[in-house]
Amino acid sequence: MGWEETAADKKERIEKTIPDEWRIKSKDVGDSVMDYPAMSGIMSDEELAITNSTAVDLVAKLAKGQMKSVAVTRAFCKRAALAHQLVNCALEFFPEMALAQANELDDYYEKNGKTVGPLHGLPISLKDQFRVKGLETSMAYVAWIGKYDEEDSVLVTLLRKAGAVFYVKTSVPQSLMVCETINNIIGRTVNPRNKNWSCGGSSGGEGANVGFRGGIIGVGTDIGGSIRVPSAFNFLYGLRPSHGRLPYAKMANSMEGQETVHSVCGPITHSVEDMRLFIKSVLFQEPWKYDSKVIPMPWRQAEEDVIKSKLSSGGLTLGFYNCDGNVLPHPPILRGVETVVSTMKKNGHEVIPWKPYKHDYAVNLINGIYAGDGGDDVYGVLKESGEPAIPNFQDLISPDLPKVDMNQLWDVQLKKWTFQCEYLAEWRKMEEKLGKEMDAIIAPITPTAAVRHNQFKYYGYASAINLLDFTSVVVPVTFADKSVDKKREDYKPLSKIDGVVNGEYDPDAYHGAPVAVQVVGRRLSEERTMAIAEEIGKLLGNQITP
Amino acid sequence: MGWEETAADKKERIEKTIPDEWRIKSKDVGDSVMDYPAMSGIMSDEELAITNSTAVDLVAKLAKGQMKSVAVTRAFCKRAALAHQLVNCALEFFPEMALAQANELDDYYEKNGKTVGPLHGLPISLKDQFRVKGLETSMAYVAWIGKYDEEDSVLVTLLRKAGAVFYVKTSVPQSLMVCETINNIIGRTVNPRNKNWSCGGSSGGEGANVGFRGGIIGVGTDIGGSIRVPSAFNFLYGLRPSHGRLPYAKMANSMEGQETVHSVCGPITHSVEDMRLFIKSVLFQEPWKYDSKVIPMPWRQAEEDVIKSKLSSGGLTLGFYNCDGNVLPHPPILRGVETVVSTMKKNGHEVIPWKPYKHDYAVNLINGIYAGDGGDDVYGVLKESGEPAIPNFQDLISPDLPKVDMNQLWDVQLKKWTFQCEYLAEWRKMEEKLGKEMDAIIAPITPTAAVRHNQFKYYGYASAINLLDFTSVVVPVTFADKSVDKKREDYKPLSKIDGVVNGEYDPDAYHGAPVAVQVVGRRLSEERTMAIAEEIGKLLGNQITP
Repeated sequence: MGWEETAADKKERIEKTIPDEWRIKSKDVGDSVMDYPAMSGIMSDEELAITNSTAVDLVAKLAKGQMKSVAVTRAFCKRAALAHQLVNCALEFFPEMALAQANELDDYYEKNGKTVGPLHGLPISLKDQFRVKGLETSMAYVAWIGKYDEEDSVLVTLLRKAGAVFYVKTSVPQSLMVCETINNIIGRTVNPRNKNWSCGGSSGGEGANVGFRGGIIGVGTDIGGSIRVPSAFNFLYGLRPSHGRLPYAKMANSMEGQETVHSVCGPITHSVEDMRLFIKSVLFQEPWKYDSKVIPMPWRQAEEDVIKSKLSSGGLTLGFYNCDGNVLPHPPILRGVETVVSTMKKNGHEVIPWKPYKHDYAVNLINGIYAGDGGDDVYGVLKESGEPAIPNFQDLISPDLPKVDMNQLWDVQLKKWTFQCEYLAEWRKMEEKLGKEMDAIIAPITPTAAVRHNQFKYYGYASAINLLDFTSVVVPVTFADKSVDKKREDYKPLSKIDGVVNGEYDPDAYHGAPVAVQVVGRRLSEERTMAIAEEIGKLLGNQITP
Repeated sequence: MGWEETAADKKERIEKTIPDEWRIKSKDVGDSVMDYPAMSGIMSDEELAITNSTAVDLVAKLAKGQMKSVAVTRAFCKRAALAHQLVNCALEFFPEMALAQANELDDYYEKNGKTVGPLHGLPISLKDQFRVKGLETSMAYVAWIGKYDEEDSVLVTLLRKAGAVFYVKTSVPQSLMVCETINNIIGRTVNPRNKNWSCGGSSGGEGANVGFRGGIIGVGTDIGGSIRVPSAFNFLYGLRPSHGRLPYAKMANSMEGQETVHSVCGPITHSVEDMRLFIKSVLFQEPWKYDSKVIPMPWRQAEEDVIKSKLSSGGLTLGFYNCDGNVLPHPPILRGVETVVSTMKKNGHEVIPWKPYKHDYAVNLINGIYAGDGGDDVYGVLKESGEPAIPNFQDLISPDLPKVDMNQLWDVQLKKWTFQCEYLAEWRKMEEKLGKEMDAIIAPITPTAAVRHNQFKYYGYASAINLLDFTSVVVPVTFADKSVDKKREDYKPLSKIDGVVNGEYDPDAYHGAPVAVQVVGRRLSEERTMAIAEEIGKLLGNQITP
């Protein structure tokens, strides 16, 4: 069987997992599919209400016996089935297994009068890097189709212990190294708000599915924006925790064993509250006893309380930047940053300009790290099946790049560490100047609102933060608006790539596209940074998707 | 100037830093020099008392104004001067600078009626990897002689803020990759208890100087035993914290930028109490704001209290092994482990056999990591000056080894992580079986008591723990005794290296040599593991050097 047949067979198998009664007759529903579930006739009012709810609410009801996991699971399965048919976001869909798992949890509750854990009965969607025993993890490589997992990834094990139900594994771009979602198996995943926009990547299937409310908490991974970009493009919250906070063991990955910059797992959600539920539920299971890379650091309520106490007296101190010196963001993003800054100032917080320290240097450094093996790992897997590289990956890493040798790698790693320490020194200097802590930095996460297909060209706003291993939470802010976000006239690009990115802006094409910022805290500052992101979201008034 | 002249000049400059009144007339003092200070006539009774004291006691007296830093500093400078003359342990000695610093601290105290920090006025000795502004850090490379540091290493900055005084930087083996201490600048550092034994390495100068009480807290580094071996060989306590607990930024190192297995800093002390003083004093300065590799983890009193509470009810649960399957330790070490096991059992603790999981695999893996660049880094620095490699390093890494390529490195890193996770799974399985926590593991740290020169052949007891990044505290136990530690007859070696190591044992030659164990806790378990080590030491009755 050639790679095309293998891929087509996999695609067909995914489609066949959707029961007839959940099938959409006509997919001609316009550019946005956001309103489809309510008008589909496929979902009941109760199912719509469940999927429009919050995870915190659902687990509370499940724990009180006011709701059955089977009902919640069926609702999300249905909506995810719609999502897949409309935006093409699933690489594995397994409602039967999910409903069986839900049923077991309901039985357990009935018999024991208590939950198995803090996520009892809650469906959680997973990027197709997570291994679930009995299922395939192709990670969008044709060569990996047909390999069935014999054990769960550690995070899956722990979520299962906490009571989560699994029902879908979502699509990724071939190689995972791209911030759009396209592969040779199911093609492109599109944005549910407008099929002409990207859902982001590499956790793009998660972004699309959760954005459509086919999921309530989705789990992605991020080595250069792969959680944060889909969150931003789908008007969602997304957490890139620092490396070592959440377990990554036993997952599939590209360039496995690469440790110069670690990929990390994190949640994509509709609110910080749900994000917190997820993190606390995982940390409660002591993941450091399973995955050696996880730091023994339980949820630190005292850290969250530091922020709460600042909120109740004195206020926060935030830095901000709207340009990293390489690429000036499109007008909607500049307005997004300005909206956050002015909202925070209006509410009594101090917001001060932060000079992005050597971000150009950082972006070059991390690009070299991504290409450290000259693409051998990815191109090697492609060769196994014969499938071609997607153009977006070819643009990033061409197959004839030289490998970095060991002493060159050590040099790069030393530069990384030195840069990180210099950045910390800048942060300290600022704090010395202010005479108080700078709690976080507000910054763009991408230079564009949800981008048009094949137009994601600049990863630097995201990847500089990966190089620093800082904690980052994406907060949805607003939507591009052609009436105010005019194209800049006579703009002189800062760089060649800036010219390309800025040339792409078109007020009409981007009208309505989600705009987000990231809130960046120092390494392993999840509790504090999430609390700040929550406050920003609250003050913006966008905790619930509009 | 040829390398020999450069080295000879450096050696002479070190010797010249010793004032005439501290010079020893005749060095013919026998194999052990431990009694020399008391009979030297160079040190006053007060100075002997100060240097025989504990760091905890000294900082308490300094903080109450009952003692001057100048007096304490002079006492340690004198004793370190004796140490260098007798066992050849210093690469930088700077009593004038130290006394000036002590004087400033005394002035500060007099003016302000308070200390600058928790280590106010206490001299701390440093391995010659730490940079102190204005001094040389040759790290025993001839090529690096004459390079003067323009800034402090981060740990030095923080110790300085805490009030520590610096006076000596101690000797290391060329390359740092060897557990004895010999280089082409000052030659060999010997064990103060017997000049025929090694002081260990690579923090061997620290081991010798602190063992001789030329220092009260010494700071070393460890990538394969380099803190723990000198601690063991000099009847001292030594902590190898997990990576990320203490700052390493801005230090000199071999193979800088190598991150597959991190070298870490840690203290070498006469007691766990002094070790704790050191760690708490550093963590109090929030090192994670200076060094990006440090985890934001303050001293966790609650973790120490878990152990204390077990001590007051129920007791500890400890695993132990006396053989890693590769090399059976010499009889004195087996007796050392047995002494700890029986002492703990006698005192109501549960001690159970632990099967060392795949240590042979771990040792092979980490040896490959040490040699990852085919020796390019070290041999490159040697070439700069023309000095030859020391034989001990040549044995380890020959100059013609092939380099590991990037994908091979990733493979090794993946194997490391997998092994670490498997080890955690074994630990969990044991705890499930026991129905309670296994608090730590007792194990040999070397297969020999303080070893004869050029006989350190097997690093595996130490290095397997580095690969796991577990926390390890060395506890001194006893001394080799020819009357009980007989040579094994008709012994069949487990391996070729076991044959070599066991062939080396000679009850007469090792009579009186220090014997130690390591107490191993999971990653980042410093508070707990130190508390366990303290209890073991207390029950053995050897908190004070005999």
